[in-house]
Order: sequence, then C-alpha cells, then structure tokens
Amino acid sequence: MQAAYYHGNQTIKAGACVPSDPDADEVRIDVAYCGVCGTDLHIFLGHMDQRLQTPQVIGHEMSGTIAQIGSAVNGWNLGDKVVVRPLAPCNNCAACRRGHSHICQNLNFLGIDTPGAFQSSWTVPAHTLHRLPDSLALDRAALIEPLAVACHDVRLSQVQAGDYAVVIGGGPIGMLNALVARQAGAQVTVVEINPYRVEFARSLGLDAINPQQTDPVAYIEDRTEGGGADVVFEVSGSQPGAQLMTKLVRTRGRIVVVAIFAQAPQVDLFRFFWRELQLVGVRVYEPEDYDKAIALAANNALPLDQLITDRQPLDALHEVFTQLAAGSETMKVLIDTQGV
Amino acid sequence: MQAAYYHGNQTIKAGACVPSDPDADEVRIDVAYCGVCGTDLHIFLGHMDQRLQTPQVIGHEMSGTIAQIGSAVNGWNLGDKVVVRPLAPCNNCAACRRGHSHICQNLNFLGIDTPGAFQSSWTVPAHTLHRLPDSLALDRAALIEPLAVACHDVRLSQVQAGDYAVVIGGGPIGMLNALVARQAGAQVTVVEINPYRVEFARSLGLDAINPQQTDPVAYIEDRTEGGGADVVFEVSGSQPGAQLMTKLVRTRGRIVVVAIFAQAPQVDLFRFFWRELQLVGVRVYEPEDYDKAIALAANNALPLDQLITDRQPLDALHEVFTQLAAGSETMKVLIDTQGV
Repeated sequence: MQAAYYHGNQTIKAGACVPSDPDADEVRIDVAYCGVCGTDLHIFLGHMDQRLQTPQVIGHEMSGTIAQIGSAVNGWNLGDKVVVRPLAPCNNCAACRRGHSHICQNLNFLGIDTPGAFQSSWTVPAHTLHRLPDSLALDRAALIEPLAVACHDVRLSQVQAGDYAVVIGGGPIGMLNALVARQAGAQVTVVEINPYRVEFARSLGLDAINPQQTDPVAYIEDRTEGGGADVVFEVSGSQPGAQLMTKLVRTRGRIVVVAIFAQAPQVDLFRFFWRELQLVGVRVYEPEDYDKAIALAANNALPLDQLITDRQPLDALHEVFTQLAAGSETMKVLIDTQGV
Repeated sequence: MQAAYYHGNQTIKAGACVPSDPDADEVRIDVAYCGVCGTDLHIFLGHMDQRLQTPQVIGHEMSGTIAQIGSAVNGWNLGDKVVVRPLAPCNNCAACRRGHSHICQNLNFLGIDTPGAFQSSWTVPAHTLHRLPDSLALDRAALIEPLAVACHDVRLSQVQAGDYAVVIGGGPIGMLNALVARQAGAQVTVVEINPYRVEFARSLGLDAINPQQTDPVAYIEDRTEGGGADVVFEVSGSQPGAQLMTKLVRTRGRIVVVAIFAQAPQVDLFRFFWRELQLVGVRVYEPEDYDKAIALAANNALPLDQLITDRQPLDALHEVFTQLAAGSETMKVLIDTQGV
C-alpha cells in the first residue's frame, strides 16, 4: 500500500500508506484512481503552503470501493463502489446556517486541509460518500469530482436549451463546462489560446477558436445576430479573459466566474451597467451536482474517457507535476493508486 | 418662454425657448420643474461632448402639464399632469427584440441625444408619458425620474423584507436607493465619505457611517452575525467602492452596480468564486418602475420633499452647475422652468 506525500519545495515523494481505522462515522476506502487537479498543481508549486501541513497526502478526484465501515455508519456495505464529495463543513457559520455549507466559511477540504486520495487507502466521513452504479468503470468515475464542478457551474449559469454559451479557457474544467452546457442544449464555443487545447476541444466535437487567430467578439456577434452570448464561463483566470468576458455577453446575459483569480483583474463595470449584465461566482458543488455528474457518467452522455490522456502509478506523481508545471500537452492525468 | 442651452466648454446660456409643434404621435408639455442630474453635470463638464450636438437643451428629471396634442395621440387631454420616461428605443436591435428596450443598443435618451427639459416647453413622443395623480405636487413629481431609477435598482436587487442592504455612496441616487430599499423592508446602512451627505442621510432617518471613521466591514459583520449584507448597492463609481463591495456581502449575496464607472476598477473575482457572490448591473428603468415611483411619491411614502435642497430659475443653471462641479453641499436642485 503506497501513498504520495507532498513535502513542500515542489517535491512529492512516494512512501508507505498508513491505513487509518475509521471512526464511528467514517469509512475506509480502497482508492482505485485519483485524478490530478489544477488545485493539486497549485499546491505542488507552493502557492498554498500557508494552508498545508507537510508532509501531506493530497488529491481529491478519486474513485474506489469501501474496505472498512465505522460502527455508527448505516446504509453502506463492504465493496460498494463510491466517490467522495471532499467537503467537511462546520455546520455552524453564517454560510452553513443559510444552507450554503458547500462554501462554509470554515470549510475543511479533504485532500488540502486534511489528507487526500493519492494513496491506496483513504479514511473519510461517511457523509461525503456518493454511490456509483455497478456498471460505471472506476477510471471514468475518477472524473466525477471535476464533472460535478461543471454540473454546478452550468446549473448556476441557468443556461437553457437553445442558448449560446462561450467558455473562455479550455483546460479540463473548461472542457467539462463546455460538454455539460452542450448536453444541456446550448450551442457552445470554446475560446482558448493553447493550440493543443483548441484541437483537443475540436476532437470532442466542440466549436473552438483561438483568439490569436480569430476575433472572438466578431465571431460571437456573427453567430448571435449582433446580440452576444447568453452565458459566458470565465475559466482562464487571466486579465485577458476578464476583459473578454464582458465583451461577449448579451444584454442581461450571465457571466460565470469559474476560475480562481490569483490577482484581482480590472473589470469593465461600465459594461455591466450599460448592458445590465449579471455575474455569478461558482465554487465546488452541492450533493445534487454529484448526483447529476454520476448520472451523466453512467449514461455515457459525455466523451469522458477521451479526457483521460495519461495514466500513471503513484510513484510517478512527482514527475507528472513537474511536467504539468512545464506545460505538457495533456488534459487529465489519472493516478492508479493500486498500481506500482 | 425660456430655455437653457449647453454650448460646450462648461458653459450654459439662457435663451429663448422655441416651442415645437408636436408631430402626430407627440405631445408638447409645459415643463414645470426639471431636476439637475449627475449625468447633466457630466455633460456640463464636457465628458459626453462626443455624444452631444451643441447648442443643446439638456435635462430629463421633469414634471409638467400637456399643452398640445398630436393628431394621432389618444388617451391624453390638455392640462394632464405628466412625467416623461425619456427613452426612445429603436425597437429593432437584439436588446429590443429580447424585450430589453430600456437598454436598447441604439437608445435615444431624451435630454442627451435629443433636446431635453431645461426649457419652458418640451415636445416628446406620447409613448414616453406617465400620468400623475392630481394630488401629486409638480415639484415633488420632478423626483419621479431618479426615484424610478432607484425602484429599478431595488427591484433587480431582489431585496426582501428583513434583508440587510448597504448603499455605498450617498448622493441623490444612493439616497433614493436607500429609501426605496428601506421602504421594501430592508435594514439599510449608507456608507459615504462626505460628512454633509452622512449627516443628510441621518436627517432622513437612515443609518449612515463614514468609512474614514468607522470600519465598514467590521460594522456590517457585527450587525449580520458575521455573515455580511444580503445586498450591496455600489453607487460611488470609485475604486475604493469597488474594493469595498465584495467585502461587505454575504455568501451568495448580491452586488448591484448602479454607478457609472468611468474607468474599469480592479474587482476581487476570487471573492466572487469563494463566496459565490452575484453581481448585477442596472440601468435606467422600465415602465413598471415609473408606476412604482409615482405610487410611492403620491402616497408620501418617502421623505422626497426633504431631498429638494435648492430651487433656481433657468437663467441660474450655469451657476448651479459651476457650484456642483466645485462640490457644493446640496442634494437635489430643482430648476423652475417657468420662473424668471
């Protein structure tokens, strides 16, 4: 049983997994796969060192089967296929009291604030579990967590069938947003400057343009009778993205801030006034978003398997992060946590 | 019959009003009063010279009585007391086709793009008229237009009875937003750096703080059990206001951009993500907002008369603008367009 430990200083080291017996309200999971998330890369690069204690096992985009069950846990059996919604709210703050416990003001995020899933065996609170259908393969199921992000984003975007949606930024989350919005009946264009990602989007059957080659404003206006897009997802986290988002959206259209902006960009608030634009920030997911993601994955409604561009064992994780940091041409890397 | 003409170069000159016979679908109004708006001050200061042809009569916050009726106009009589909703949309653009004609992409704003109401006699399309109850005094009725702005802002804010609302910026529009939000059942705090305006808000019975003396974040958190305000109206149009707005609002709370930002400020989009904040831009009004404003004014539901801090004749308008530009201690100045 292995685990990968983040030691700070852009270093991940493989080591022994120390299985933890579940408390009364916990279960222990044999982790099957754990995907590498952009947040994990931020951690590797040291951006979140203030928040983490090291050495720490990170990772949260996982799938697995139940291996041990706490004494007070009901409704689960050994061997059940599950994914974890890695949120442990305080249930006491102003956000929790309003029913927004997924954005609890004291949120404990499993895999950041406490140990994560880049290990063979992971012990978590039973309230975080979602059941998988037997038919759903565990490798595809490792995409449930980022897919639930996209389901949340698209739900809060209020996109309707027939709407025109633009996704600025074609990484894994942008791509999933585009796929879920398309599945909801929207016409979707992905705007992305990385040629590999533009081609990747097209390989999924998505419309995609490179703003260094095609003027996105003229392109979207042409396709919307001069009105602009109904919904724009900002997934780039960049100043150019923040500048573009207000130019692409129609009167009373909706901008969804999916990206994590490390710096506050300039935003054209005049345009918000002039066109009565709306903007909504979206973060993680609620239980219904997991339910939706599981249903989409189980029904094979989206080309999820195509998003998995690489599979590696736990002891390759350091090298995976090093390559991602260097800008490798990849979409989603899965770590096989039982593999050697 | 007089008129006040904007000649560019921070100059207003009084001159003869040249009454214009109404076309078939127009009426001519004897203007009673016309308030001075912040937009008028922007025009006086030359900020909108590209949009205006000079000499031009400006002004749009008016009240009056019908003096002449076009041949195709039905439903109106000579002497009817009216206000004008000064919007002439194209009825053809993408915004109009969606029913957002008040923010038509080719909007003709009466008093900016075509002659306005700083004159004794004003000819306008009949579709812009709203009827006033006989009981409503014409001086108070000159506040209907800015009050309709506030009714629109508060309606789109979705503020509910029992909510906590903060208004950043205590000029006339900020003050009206605060009064309408309070009338809708919200608890309201005005945040304003100008001591005259802080005291003015308090004289209206509003809670008001000066952020140079009181930390607004701690103040609002204290009053909302650490959660933050349900709604924040940004009416200052300033970088400090844009910075403050995201700090004051609770998870999933709503920021309403009322101000006209001359420059794109930095906006903390990370906070939008982190707290799932919403932002909505609001501009002018729709017919129902005029109906609401007229009802509020007629029922004496708000201390509107107190907002009128000065009354001047048309030939004093140049001096009024000069003093406003210098930062005079005043709230709403009414021009008596029949006075000498």
